[in-house]
Amino acid sequence: MLPQWIIEKKRDGNALTEEEIRFLIEGYTKEEIPDYQMAAFAMAVYFKGMTFEEMAILTDAMMRSGDLVDTSSIKLPKADKHSTGGIGDKVSLVLAPLIACCGIAVPMVSGRGLGITGGTLDKLESIPGYRTDLSEREFVDTIDKCGCSITGQTGQLAPADKKLYALRDVTGTVPSIPLIVASIMSKKMAEGIDSLVLDVKWGKGAFMQTMEDARELAHNMVEVGVCMGKNMTALLTGMNQPLGRTAGNALEVIESIEALKGNGPADLMQVTLELCGHMLLLSKKASDIKEAKGILLSHIESGEALERFKQMVGLQGGDPASIDDISKLPRAATQEPVSSSESGYIAAVDAEKIGRACILLGAGRKRTEDAVDFAVGVSDILKIGDKVQRGDKLLTVHANDPASCSEAVAMTREAFAFSEAPVESPELINEIVTPKGS
Amino acid sequence: MLPQWIIEKKRDGNALTEEEIRFLIEGYTKEEIPDYQMAAFAMAVYFKGMTFEEMAILTDAMMRSGDLVDTSSIKLPKADKHSTGGIGDKVSLVLAPLIACCGIAVPMVSGRGLGITGGTLDKLESIPGYRTDLSEREFVDTIDKCGCSITGQTGQLAPADKKLYALRDVTGTVPSIPLIVASIMSKKMAEGIDSLVLDVKWGKGAFMQTMEDARELAHNMVEVGVCMGKNMTALLTGMNQPLGRTAGNALEVIESIEALKGNGPADLMQVTLELCGHMLLLSKKASDIKEAKGILLSHIESGEALERFKQMVGLQGGDPASIDDISKLPRAATQEPVSSSESGYIAAVDAEKIGRACILLGAGRKRTEDAVDFAVGVSDILKIGDKVQRGDKLLTVHANDPASCSEAVAMTREAFAFSEAPVESPELINEIVTPKGS
Repeated sequence: MLPQWIIEKKRDGNALTEEEIRFLIEGYTKEEIPDYQMAAFAMAVYFKGMTFEEMAILTDAMMRSGDLVDTSSIKLPKADKHSTGGIGDKVSLVLAPLIACCGIAVPMVSGRGLGITGGTLDKLESIPGYRTDLSEREFVDTIDKCGCSITGQTGQLAPADKKLYALRDVTGTVPSIPLIVASIMSKKMAEGIDSLVLDVKWGKGAFMQTMEDARELAHNMVEVGVCMGKNMTALLTGMNQPLGRTAGNALEVIESIEALKGNGPADLMQVTLELCGHMLLLSKKASDIKEAKGILLSHIESGEALERFKQMVGLQGGDPASIDDISKLPRAATQEPVSSSESGYIAAVDAEKIGRACILLGAGRKRTEDAVDFAVGVSDILKIGDKVQRGDKLLTVHANDPASCSEAVAMTREAFAFSEAPVESPELINEIVTPKGS
Repeated sequence: MLPQWIIEKKRDGNALTEEEIRFLIEGYTKEEIPDYQMAAFAMAVYFKGMTFEEMAILTDAMMRSGDLVDTSSIKLPKADKHSTGGIGDKVSLVLAPLIACCGIAVPMVSGRGLGITGGTLDKLESIPGYRTDLSEREFVDTIDKCGCSITGQTGQLAPADKKLYALRDVTGTVPSIPLIVASIMSKKMAEGIDSLVLDVKWGKGAFMQTMEDARELAHNMVEVGVCMGKNMTALLTGMNQPLGRTAGNALEVIESIEALKGNGPADLMQVTLELCGHMLLLSKKASDIKEAKGILLSHIESGEALERFKQMVGLQGGDPASIDDISKLPRAATQEPVSSSESGYIAAVDAEKIGRACILLGAGRKRTEDAVDFAVGVSDILKIGDKVQRGDKLLTVHANDPASCSEAVAMTREAFAFSEAPVESPELINEIVTPKGS
């Protein structure tokens, strides 16, 4: 078998065999197949696509290029959630302990932020002492004790994906559905879970710009997951404004604590409960979404959800006291209100601009090697539909240096658009995508 | 400008600007743009094509990646012919001196054989002493003295093409019309010619398998040549059997000498006169093809064409006496007749099998670094339509070792197919492709 034969076969629109896909990915991982052949292959896939079966094999081959997380000793049903990423998306912090309360284990291997979207690991690391570098043993022990753990990769996770992603980035082959699907799923499938709920976001500041693109990606991921024997559901959610009222690491932890107490902003609560609800349905812990949400709310009201979060923080080396007393979390030197220059109803909040302002303040990374400032970001973000008078506060900028502060003030002010007539709050959850056969 | 932006633009089906194409080719030549980006670009071109203008710029950029041949001191009109290559195609050897007789300079930079088709340089090097490594000065001097010269590249000819061709070979991007066009034309345009006639062959043993594919390639090359200010005509010719009655280096030289005397096989004479005739028309040396062929035949009959060939051979270090006395040319140890196992009319002669037998005998190269045996090959090949009795000779194998001889005998015998009913000789020249605007 020669790599060029496989490239030609895909170029001509044929489905590849399992043997061919594994040959390609194994050869690429071992550096026996060079970047230039993989680049030509990726472009052929861009144009000719892949069947669900091909994508499932590609996902499996990429997953097996690295270490798998051995969660087989955990006897509870195992479930996870993956989001394609959005500004202010702190759902994982609320979801993991809340699901753990329901007798479902959550072995969540998460990532860092790059570009305008934040990373779950960065958010958690703003809690003094919190470790995201657990060994596999520590990861499984944490889950055994509190039902959930959020950590960074424990071994070498899907190195083929890492190589291929870097290559796609410079060869015009990022926006290829089969390659996106295999990239996301190869990492999630390595967790050894039974069920996966996907939050596929669309809009400004999301990876998918339109709902149509988000739907196609969601549909493909759901079918590939089913091919791989997993219970799958995907939600299409709008990212036309930031999720919740904060963006920035410690600020989002504080908002997550409020959500675990039942006091989170409406949009964050709605998305979290919907995602959690579908995880309960997939794990057969409830028979309908209404029942599921009832169970979830009871765990919030009883204080058990917050308690689980504190337990997880403690087990991972963090200071549980900082959850009760948020003054122990990092706080920026300056809090600068940004006031509205217009009166009216808020018609739009550009999530991308908010995200860019956060990077400017130091909350995110431009490059992988950049350090992150946990304290900075924005809070009190008004939402679409809110009524304001000229001079009212639109949000608060948290900054550690004056120059980036004034830049961020100007940039975030520009993120808002206004209307004289009242504006309805946009639909947050647009569609629920389930497997075709179900 | 980043290479990935250009890749993405082509991927999305847009025409590239001159600046973008030159940036890509110059960067690739200087090794500033890596193979993996060029591979993705080539695959995008495979799927999305190029306009004639883009192809002309790509051709020019690839041509300028290396040295141009300075033929500006030659005041005669300059013309050349390019063939996409076929088994037994020795037309260049007859055409160059014949055209030189008509007051047209032929600065022919030719190549070596690779795979089943022979190379003009290999054929000429079977003449004792013939040099194909002329300097630019020697090349121009030879043309000044006898009107034509056939040599290898004088400097570094289109290194971007050499790199890109090797890359295409292993990335499934060989059969892309814009890339084929730029590869062929970048080398021919470096000769500084005014007119170019193309012989685009199709059929078994040709680069293009169908007449439709050959027509598309011819049409594209003609239009790109016109974009670059050249007079262009292309012929579509069938390669469903070998051209002439010989294949192999010295054997083809002997057949070419016969053709220059007017005694060549009918198919070789027909194709040569048609190609030469169109060169005369493009250089305004005749007003119609009939007049052109009359002029050409007069130069054959007068002996001038053969004389020019002898002159060129002598000027390039070869022994002119070997042209008059072919016993001075290399001759194989064994001449083995291959007899027919059937009676009937010859219905097919598989050019590809004849070509493979020649490689087996040592007449061609499997890899670039292989040495060539000038003496071996096949002669006296019968043609489609010829009537044979069982036991009649189909061709003669010329071999220098017994093992390859018997293999070649078996392989060439299999090249023939028979019919009980009479078979017509196939049409040799199928179409003449001229610029759309003309």
